[in-house]
Amino acid sequence: MQIYFSCSITGGRQDQPIYQRIVAHLQARGHQVPTALLADAQMEPPEAQLDAAAVYARDVNWVKTSQALIAEVSTPSHGVGYEIALAESLGMPVLCCYQAGRKVSKMITGNPNPAVMVRAYRTPEEALQIVDAFLGKIG
Amino acid sequence: MQIYFSCSITGGRQDQPIYQRIVAHLQARGHQVPTALLADAQMEPPEAQLDAAAVYARDVNWVKTSQALIAEVSTPSHGVGYEIALAESLGMPVLCCYQAGRKVSKMITGNPNPAVMVRAYRTPEEALQIVDAFLGKIG
Repeated sequence: MQIYFSCSITGGRQDQPIYQRIVAHLQARGHQVPTALLADAQMEPPEAQLDAAAVYARDVNWVKTSQALIAEVSTPSHGVGYEIALAESLGMPVLCCYQAGRKVSKMITGNPNPAVMVRAYRTPEEALQIVDAFLGKIG
Repeated sequence: MQIYFSCSITGGRQDQPIYQRIVAHLQARGHQVPTALLADAQMEPPEAQLDAAAVYARDVNWVKTSQALIAEVSTPSHGVGYEIALAESLGMPVLCCYQAGRKVSKMITGNPNPAVMVRAYRTPEEALQIVDAFLGKIG
């Protein structure tokens, strides 16, 4: 299926290695990830050079044409929060995962929507297990 | 009118003084700001002690019962991004303001919705002028 992977760009890139692990895992299982380029250490073309309106239109279209959204929420990000609410308003299943010990907004961790799964992970391997559990639930 | 003021809590509090200036300005003009306590330097009761589900339910209800949303987006925040999308999905007018020079997500600055106003300010006084221009436009 097409899965939108949502991660921090402007908010900070310190968690980029786990973004890449999750996207590679999804692709290895045969899923299409339109945002795969945003999980790369070197974004090509650099997002900073793209017009804001073009990025907004591209990303909203990718959310709307996806069947699920997986967000890595360890690093605060306006864009990720926005995309989670957008996916939810479209009735899509959403996974929000984050490194155990990070402080995450209660607007994420307190969401009662049963279509929104929120999980902490301790290791990259556990993050991938959580992704698989989410995919198994919605598949 | 009732105005939801949206600001970073978990994401970082370094911009708290401007949050307080904006809320005080709104209250001085006779508006109700249910989130006023979140703009204070000392949040009472401390948000950290509140249950996540209770915070989510409270804040979503406050958004839904407000007539407009004003977000200060200088500091990345999942909750603020989430609330902007929620307000937008409800057809509410939204102002996103930030300190000139800060890097702000293109999911904020690239939004083409005419009901969403995005403005940078150089001084606190200019931020308040932007707030007044927004209120004049929707009033």
